[in-house]
Amino acid sequence: MTYRLYQMADSGNCYKIRLLMSQLALPLETVEIDITRGESRTKEFLAINPNGKVPTFEIAPGQYLAESNAILWYLARQTNYLPTDAYAQALVMQWFGFEQYSHEPNIATARYWIKIINAANDYEQELISKHAAGYKALDVMERHLGLNDFFVNDYSVADIALFAYTHVCHEGGFTLSGYPAIRQWIERVRDQPGFIDINA
Amino acid sequence: MTYRLYQMADSGNCYKIRLLMSQLALPLETVEIDITRGESRTKEFLAINPNGKVPTFEIAPGQYLAESNAILWYLARQTNYLPTDAYAQALVMQWFGFEQYSHEPNIATARYWIKIINAANDYEQELISKHAAGYKALDVMERHLGLNDFFVNDYSVADIALFAYTHVCHEGGFTLSGYPAIRQWIERVRDQPGFIDINA
Repeated sequence: MTYRLYQMADSGNCYKIRLLMSQLALPLETVEIDITRGESRTKEFLAINPNGKVPTFEIAPGQYLAESNAILWYLARQTNYLPTDAYAQALVMQWFGFEQYSHEPNIATARYWIKIINAANDYEQELISKHAAGYKALDVMERHLGLNDFFVNDYSVADIALFAYTHVCHEGGFTLSGYPAIRQWIERVRDQPGFIDINA
Repeated sequence: MTYRLYQMADSGNCYKIRLLMSQLALPLETVEIDITRGESRTKEFLAINPNGKVPTFEIAPGQYLAESNAILWYLARQTNYLPTDAYAQALVMQWFGFEQYSHEPNIATARYWIKIINAANDYEQELISKHAAGYKALDVMERHLGLNDFFVNDYSVADIALFAYTHVCHEGGFTLSGYPAIRQWIERVRDQPGFIDINA
């Protein structure tokens, strides 16, 4: 069967999977789930992902996988998008952890409030702390990218994981004006073969 | 060299590493970092982990790895604590993602405010939302453990990742009284060879 992605197209976590699938030149079927209308909390959806989140990925009939970075890892193994050395693989997972703990909850959540549900006014106070913590994560990235072209060795799923929400962080009220290394890395990612835009 | 763990002993994320190292019967040197006194934000510490967090793990002189679940993965590969099948490995990573995104930020953070920094009164409002979100994560675990003895196949690093903060969730104001499957799983984890307590 063709891999099937349950997604909300605007979500950076879902875009990660589309981007890698494009770079692997694999066919993909998408099913749109509008999380703002509760479509990830229906009985049917909870049967395929009890945590009620997108992306959820069907790799074989009835065989599901959740969590964007786990899906990236599954698809990238034995390809050029995952390093083979054990320490380098562990560093990819380190950046996955950084992305889901220190980066996404701040940068993606600010974008969700501002762009996806158009509710910046309701989250004025929360946005102040999300912006502070998000810039801390961008500082860590800037420091690394000042010394390295990519996150681990060459371009890998670690870059895909971090690119997804970083390159649209302005939609969450962030500016990359003080982050030249990140801006140059964004261009390097855009130059990769098979790159597709989040809106593609 | 002996592996070296930069840790705060009370941290569940650091305990994960000690527990697996005990089960692998590997020697471990620990260096105590008091994050409540800024010791993870010194210039020296930021040189080994620019994200300023524990655990940080030294696997060879000058070679560091951060993020608890990345360290678990690195140590568990080619042992019985990580399944070999690609889909099962991806499910371990799925639970890693769940733990760091949906579980730890709620359950560990509540414990941090209440037990570690003794500031429950300062976080009264925040604790309400942390408890609501934490119970949602426990619901997902209970549902899975009602049907399965462990998170992926047999006991693995997925169980270690989720055990660390679940078994001390009462220290964050949670009760497992409505979660019989989780309570039984906690006993199954305690029965594993090489098990050590968080206070050991």
